[in-house]
Amino acid sequence: MLNEMNSPKANRLAGGDVAVIGVGMTKFGELWNKSLRDIFVEAAMKAIENSGVDHIDSMYVGTMSGGLFVGQEHVGAVMADYLGSVPIPATRVESACASGGAAFRSAFFEVASGYSEIVLAGGVEKMTDGADVTDALATAADQEYEVYHGITFPGLYAMMARAHMHQYKTTREQLAHVAVKNHKNGSLNPNAQFRSQATLEQVMNSTMVADPLRLLDCSPVSDGGAAVILCSLEYAKKLKRPFVKVKASAQASGTIALHSRESLTSLDCVSVAAKKAFKQSNIKPYDINFAEVHDCFTIAEIIVTEDLGFFEKGKGGISVEQGLTSLNGKIPINTSGGLKAKGHPVGATGIAQIIECYEQLTGNAGERQIKNAKLGLAQNMGGSGASCTIHILEAI
Amino acid sequence: MLNEMNSPKANRLAGGDVAVIGVGMTKFGELWNKSLRDIFVEAAMKAIENSGVDHIDSMYVGTMSGGLFVGQEHVGAVMADYLGSVPIPATRVESACASGGAAFRSAFFEVASGYSEIVLAGGVEKMTDGADVTDALATAADQEYEVYHGITFPGLYAMMARAHMHQYKTTREQLAHVAVKNHKNGSLNPNAQFRSQATLEQVMNSTMVADPLRLLDCSPVSDGGAAVILCSLEYAKKLKRPFVKVKASAQASGTIALHSRESLTSLDCVSVAAKKAFKQSNIKPYDINFAEVHDCFTIAEIIVTEDLGFFEKGKGGISVEQGLTSLNGKIPINTSGGLKAKGHPVGATGIAQIIECYEQLTGNAGERQIKNAKLGLAQNMGGSGASCTIHILEAI
Repeated sequence: MLNEMNSPKANRLAGGDVAVIGVGMTKFGELWNKSLRDIFVEAAMKAIENSGVDHIDSMYVGTMSGGLFVGQEHVGAVMADYLGSVPIPATRVESACASGGAAFRSAFFEVASGYSEIVLAGGVEKMTDGADVTDALATAADQEYEVYHGITFPGLYAMMARAHMHQYKTTREQLAHVAVKNHKNGSLNPNAQFRSQATLEQVMNSTMVADPLRLLDCSPVSDGGAAVILCSLEYAKKLKRPFVKVKASAQASGTIALHSRESLTSLDCVSVAAKKAFKQSNIKPYDINFAEVHDCFTIAEIIVTEDLGFFEKGKGGISVEQGLTSLNGKIPINTSGGLKAKGHPVGATGIAQIIECYEQLTGNAGERQIKNAKLGLAQNMGGSGASCTIHILEAI
Repeated sequence: MLNEMNSPKANRLAGGDVAVIGVGMTKFGELWNKSLRDIFVEAAMKAIENSGVDHIDSMYVGTMSGGLFVGQEHVGAVMADYLGSVPIPATRVESACASGGAAFRSAFFEVASGYSEIVLAGGVEKMTDGADVTDALATAADQEYEVYHGITFPGLYAMMARAHMHQYKTTREQLAHVAVKNHKNGSLNPNAQFRSQATLEQVMNSTMVADPLRLLDCSPVSDGGAAVILCSLEYAKKLKRPFVKVKASAQASGTIALHSRESLTSLDCVSVAAKKAFKQSNIKPYDINFAEVHDCFTIAEIIVTEDLGFFEKGKGGISVEQGLTSLNGKIPINTSGGLKAKGHPVGATGIAQIIECYEQLTGNAGERQIKNAKLGLAQNMGGSGASCTIHILEAI
């Protein structure tokens, strides 16, 4: 009997459905008076308090490059220590700018497997500490075939923008509309790096970075942390706090370099992951009420909303121009302000997207609250589309 | 009915028990004519071929610092691309020198959750490409409180060695015995970086690195890759190839800095993870037939074998001196040659330990084969003991 009780099977929980029961984040921006660990711990403590749990079993930390930004690898262990959660397991997960989404997915599997009941998934990045950010971010591209030859991320996305404009008659103004919308949403988000609105003219006349992308087409360099608490659906029900269900977790890869792709106007990692996520949750794109998508550059939001199936291919530009993705539109996109206005501390971004979904689905999005938020989608992307995670969350 | 079929539950496999069905690794050493991606792909292809699977559902890559060693982050995506496995999900996992163990554990959870059936867990590092290796490795320690003040890894472990010698009368010769034993084992391993044996005298007279640790007390700087294929136990049985069962997967954290610890002569992350692993598998330390442990420095092997419960606290030194951990001893330790002689490409090490366990348990360890190998343990450690993974594997 004792043997039976202690067998691996008996030690495991049921596993299965997973919920998000609490969230916390720092303000995103230039947090010069806070270190990497300060930022993470602030977000994690808020999430733990918000969830009402009295412990966590394990934690994952999404960080793109602790090594290049602040000279610190072993980021999971550092954060466990400063959170006061030693000796629980702590692991850092990296998938460039999709590190947060990948950390959430790792936590999801651990809970779903039944080996842990309550797992924290966080993300953090400290980008303003003096490192050469453009060089550090370039390590998300193909170092041997792209970076050595001088490519930068604005350059990669500028090529996609040119191709999209050529193939689908997407206009320069349509790109600008993405920035205008996201700055408007960001102005309503107390945690956003930029709470200033931007006019179409301001975007169109901002400094050229990589033709056709201008300064206000680009997400900023940011510091920030975000964390959420996942647990079994069963446990969430017992806690009697607001929670949402993780309805799907999907991930896909694309080629690391642009030159290996058949098309520059689609992101295969997005369409493949979307297909998996919709199949897993047995819903269609039009069932989704709102989405947080990876608008590292304005063109990215346009391509991604097409590849998620929200709009016909080539119609992403006209859709944003027509207001279909605005706060009161058919499918609000980036109600948080997106990477563009909320900020983009790369490792934290994927978790912050989950947080916005949670806030909307639990009716806590304040001035940004949309009506009838039942199903939200978070799409996080690494590099120029070499990795993508998609999570669908459902109000309970 | 269709709804039922497509529900998340119906899409999931049973989950549960997990097996390792195939392994592959490169030779460890100074692989100047191979890039990071070449090395990984070589190991991964060998593992896929060795396992007999016709596809993989997902992959994890353990790498400590692609950013600092070779200027490449987003390592999971790069490897998926060059392995030809796009669009399957690929995620990089980091826990300093325990990155491989952590990658294996992530793959384990994904299979155990029932969301995937066949997952590749690999590890890779390219350390000889010109980066400042001592600086890069130091990012596994506490950057703000240790590294800024000039500490290096040999320095950290030298402090532990001094404390252990003081507290338990461990001798300088006993440290050297670890190196002699592991070089002897490494001489029998075709994949080892060093196939040369070392005498007690050679170790005792090698260049001083950080008193009392000398050059031959330290694991080398290495390039190398390793990969294994995990799948559900059910699937493994169908394949009709040699496989082993994952009997336990445990992980724990310790404080990132040495100054936060009550003792320098124990590694809490090891004892906590060991306790969990033995509980999960319902066995005792003396049930284990052999182990691969994290001998980044000779003193580490001595402390770890104590904290795993193989020897009484303080008796690790005398045990190696008496030959208890030799190939024909009571509990052979590091039959592969360990980090010391096999080499230590940091991200690959944890996976290479699993490979040695697999080879021993399936009777394929050649000249290193031990008798009655039924239960093997792999202990992988990050930094100076801020993270530790332990896996117990069982012959079937």
